[in-house]
Amino acid sequence: MDDKLILLGHGSGGGLSHDLIDGLFVRHFANPLLLPLEDASAFDLPPGKTAFTTDSYVVKPIFFPGGDIGRLAVCGTVNDLSMRGARPLYLSAGFIIEEGFPIADLERIVISMSEAAREAGVSIVCGDTKVVERRAADGIFINTAGVGLIPAGVSVSVQNARPGDAVIVSGTIGDHGVTVLSQRQGLHFVSPVKSDAAPLNGLAQTMLGAAPAAVHAMRDPTRGGIATTLKEIASNSSVGIEIEEERIPVSDAVGAACEMLGLDYLYLANEGKIVAAVAEEQAARVLDAMRAQRYGRDAAVIGRVTADRPGTVTIRNPFGAKRIVEMLAGDQFPRIC
Amino acid sequence: MDDKLILLGHGSGGGLSHDLIDGLFVRHFANPLLLPLEDASAFDLPPGKTAFTTDSYVVKPIFFPGGDIGRLAVCGTVNDLSMRGARPLYLSAGFIIEEGFPIADLERIVISMSEAAREAGVSIVCGDTKVVERRAADGIFINTAGVGLIPAGVSVSVQNARPGDAVIVSGTIGDHGVTVLSQRQGLHFVSPVKSDAAPLNGLAQTMLGAAPAAVHAMRDPTRGGIATTLKEIASNSSVGIEIEEERIPVSDAVGAACEMLGLDYLYLANEGKIVAAVAEEQAARVLDAMRAQRYGRDAAVIGRVTADRPGTVTIRNPFGAKRIVEMLAGDQFPRIC
Repeated sequence: MDDKLILLGHGSGGGLSHDLIDGLFVRHFANPLLLPLEDASAFDLPPGKTAFTTDSYVVKPIFFPGGDIGRLAVCGTVNDLSMRGARPLYLSAGFIIEEGFPIADLERIVISMSEAAREAGVSIVCGDTKVVERRAADGIFINTAGVGLIPAGVSVSVQNARPGDAVIVSGTIGDHGVTVLSQRQGLHFVSPVKSDAAPLNGLAQTMLGAAPAAVHAMRDPTRGGIATTLKEIASNSSVGIEIEEERIPVSDAVGAACEMLGLDYLYLANEGKIVAAVAEEQAARVLDAMRAQRYGRDAAVIGRVTADRPGTVTIRNPFGAKRIVEMLAGDQFPRIC
Repeated sequence: MDDKLILLGHGSGGGLSHDLIDGLFVRHFANPLLLPLEDASAFDLPPGKTAFTTDSYVVKPIFFPGGDIGRLAVCGTVNDLSMRGARPLYLSAGFIIEEGFPIADLERIVISMSEAAREAGVSIVCGDTKVVERRAADGIFINTAGVGLIPAGVSVSVQNARPGDAVIVSGTIGDHGVTVLSQRQGLHFVSPVKSDAAPLNGLAQTMLGAAPAAVHAMRDPTRGGIATTLKEIASNSSVGIEIEEERIPVSDAVGAACEMLGLDYLYLANEGKIVAAVAEEQAARVLDAMRAQRYGRDAAVIGRVTADRPGTVTIRNPFGAKRIVEMLAGDQFPRIC
C-alpha cells in the first residue's frame, strides 16, 4: 500500500473499509479478540473494580523524536488507567483521517501503536475509522479508550493525598512539551531532546507493589504540566502542597530550552511521568523501587503535602523565596498531545 | 456561556478546560462516577462477559431532523454493544473541537447526548476535550466508547447465522441516510424525512427476551446500509442470504427520494435499525415482540438464510428476477455518521 493515499471510501464502511481493516489494523493489532470483526468485542474480566477512561490525540507534528501520535495514543490511555492503580487490559482505537493522508504514514502509526501496546501488555480489541474530506481535519486524529482492572485493596485517587505525604515525581519534566514545540518551530538544541512518551503501568505497579497502602494519589502530568497536576491534587484532596524548585529533575536540554524560549517547565507537558503523594514513612522504599525501573531512574521527592492552605501549591526557590503556583490559565500551546 | 466561542485554551488542560468540564460536561452528564474527576472512572461490573466497542462521529451537518451528532454518538455505541446481546452500561465521550465553535452549539450537543444516555439507561462516566486551531477540524468530532455486559447464556454473533433462519429488519430503512443527504444538499421533500437515530438496547433485549437462544446474529446497518450488513453476516457465518425486495420496509419519503436522486436504499445508512437472523420456528414470536416496541413497530421478515452460495446475498424483485447484492465498493457519501 506504499504509495497510496487514504480515500473517502476507506471510511465508508464498505469494501475499501474492509480492505483497510484487514490489511492494516487486523494485521498489526493482531489479537484473537479483534477477530472476528463483531460490532463489539467480548471478554471475561477477572474479579475486581473496572477502570475505564478515554483520550483523543491531535498532536502536531504527528511524528517527533521519541514517539508519534500512535505511541502517545496507546501510552496516554494506559497511563490514565495506571494512575488509578488499575492494570490496563484492553484498548479501543478510533481514527479520524483526512482524505489524502498517506497510507504509509498510517501504517507507521499503527505499527507504533502495536509496539506500544505490546510493551504495555495490552490488546487493542476494537476500533473504528472515519475519513473526512481534505481540509476537514488536519492529517489524523486518534481516540483511544481503555478498560483495566483495579485489584482488591488498591485505592489510589486524586482525592487521597494526606498531610505529611512526600510528593514524588518519577523523572525529568518537560521533555515531551519541549520536543513537540521545538519540532513545530524548527528549533534545534545542542543537546537533543526527545519525548518521554512511555507506558507507565509497570512503574505504577512497582510503586504499589513496594508499599500498597502508602501510594495515596497518582497522576500523570500531561497537558498543563506538573503545576496543573499538583494543583488538581491539592484541590481535590483539600491539602496544601509545597515543592522545592531545586529538587525538580529537569534535563539540561529542557532547562536550556526553557531559558531560551522563556518557558516555565512547571507547565510543560509530559507523557511518561508520574506525580505521586506517598505516605512519608514509605517514601524512601517507594523511591528506591522506582529508581530500579527504566522509567523511574530519575525519580525524586520534590516536596510535601501540608495541612495548611488547602488547595494551594507553593514553590520555594533555592534562595528560600516562595511563590504560589497557579493552574495554567489559557492555552500555553495547542495540540501538544 | 451563550454567545461565547471555544478557545484553544479550552483544550489546554488548565483553568479554561476546568471551566468547560465543570460548567458543561459534569453539569449535563451529571452522575456520581464522573465526579470526582479522576484520570479514569471506576465501577463494579456485575458478573458476565464484558463487551467493549468504539465509534467516532463526524456527521455533517451536525444538527439534522431527528437528531444531531450527540444523539448519534450515544446511540451508535449503545447499539454496537446491543448487537452482541450486551446490556450497555458505561460510555466515554471524547470531543475534538475546532477553535471558534459556538459554546451554545456544544451545549446543545451535550444536552442531546445526556438525553440519549438517559433514554438508553447508560451513564457517561469519562471524557476528554481537545481543541484544534481554526480549519484544523470541521466544527466538532465526537468519539464514544462503551462498556456493557453480556448476560450468561447469550451468544449473538455475526458468525452465528444458520441456514433456515429468518432474516428480520426492525423497521423502514434509509431514513438516516436520506435525511443527512437532503440536509446537506438543501433538498426538501413533500413528506419530510427524519433520522431514525435511536438507542436499540431495549429492542434488542426484547428480542432476546422473547426467544433467547433463537436470535443468532444481530447487526445495526449503519454506514454501507443493509446491503453491507447482510453481506457481512453472509461472509462471517458462511451462509447465503436471499431477500425479497417487496418485503423491505421503506417509507414513502425515502422511496421517493431514492427514485429522484438515483439512490439505492439498500446502501443508505440507518442509525436505529437492527438486521437479525432468527431461528425460523421462533421468528413469528420475535417479530411480535418487536412490533410491540416503539422502535420495532415496522419490523418485517425480509428473507431467509440458505446453505447454498455461502457469502452471497441475493435479492429478488417482485417479478421474480434475482440479482446479487455486493458490498458498497467505494464512498457512497462521506460523513454520514
